[in-house]
Amino acid sequence: MNFCSNCGAPVSQKVPPGDNLPRFVCDACQAIHYENPKIVVGCIPEWGEQILLCRRAIEPKYGLWTVPAGFMEQGETAEQAAAREALEEAKVDVEITSLYAVFSIPHISQVYMIFRGRMRTPSFGTSAESLEVQLFKHADIPWDSLAFPVIHETLHRYVQDRSRGSFQIHLGVVPPKRK
Amino acid sequence: MNFCSNCGAPVSQKVPPGDNLPRFVCDACQAIHYENPKIVVGCIPEWGEQILLCRRAIEPKYGLWTVPAGFMEQGETAEQAAAREALEEAKVDVEITSLYAVFSIPHISQVYMIFRGRMRTPSFGTSAESLEVQLFKHADIPWDSLAFPVIHETLHRYVQDRSRGSFQIHLGVVPPKRK
Repeated sequence: MNFCSNCGAPVSQKVPPGDNLPRFVCDACQAIHYENPKIVVGCIPEWGEQILLCRRAIEPKYGLWTVPAGFMEQGETAEQAAAREALEEAKVDVEITSLYAVFSIPHISQVYMIFRGRMRTPSFGTSAESLEVQLFKHADIPWDSLAFPVIHETLHRYVQDRSRGSFQIHLGVVPPKRK
Repeated sequence: MNFCSNCGAPVSQKVPPGDNLPRFVCDACQAIHYENPKIVVGCIPEWGEQILLCRRAIEPKYGLWTVPAGFMEQGETAEQAAAREALEEAKVDVEITSLYAVFSIPHISQVYMIFRGRMRTPSFGTSAESLEVQLFKHADIPWDSLAFPVIHETLHRYVQDRSRGSFQIHLGVVPPKRK
């Protein structure tokens, strides 16, 4: 951030009065520009014992598999966002049934909220964001071709829960990848 | 938003290629400025069967009661944010033990994540943000003087769960207040 989005003057980093973190503050109009973590919302679309995955048609991680997920938008609920992403990315109509995982990814300031979603019909399809969309039995999940560590962790726990026959909500932290 | 935070030129609202929502886009450098919901993270500090509430020393809702909560910051986990807010607002050291409630408030584009927090000691105190900080038995919660509908709803469910002897995670939506 270089300029004030309110008045267009340059901004400086300083700790505002009463605050304890540096913020971008406008040198002219004094507007404080906060930056906060973003919420990524998605779901695991379920059809019986199979789950629906998408192969990414966009960067980052072009060509790798993931669940439908994306940035939550203004004016929607988390559940609405999860269903919207499923419809946009995988052309699938899901009923969001429960929260499944909440993972913080502090090094990129994101929080993932992944729900379980019951597919209302077995209909799905590709989109501008997905090269392929496919139902997978748990034994066939492409573990080595998953797009993101948070998705790997979520699906790993999901398969464990499913094999135990009992689902719980998972909380966690995804650290930076080891170099 | 009037000006580009990257280059300082005016922005216009338009739907970028491949997108389906209007965004602020810079007329000069073409930077797209996304706006996304903010996460408010807090906890219910527990000391035996009592919970710790704070009376707000700041607007909005100056003078009304709430749990320690605030905007999640860059670079922290949700659990860290909840513990940090408890320390800042109520000078209380909590161990975050579980997620308790996730409420979307779409009309103000916020998602509240409220955890349960075990107070490590019975020590707490006021702060620049809290006029009073006090332990409450459930029967004494000041229902008519709570700051926000989302806090009212969360504590209402909490007291119900406690009286049933079984806690679950609550998901929900807080609609705009009826006029």
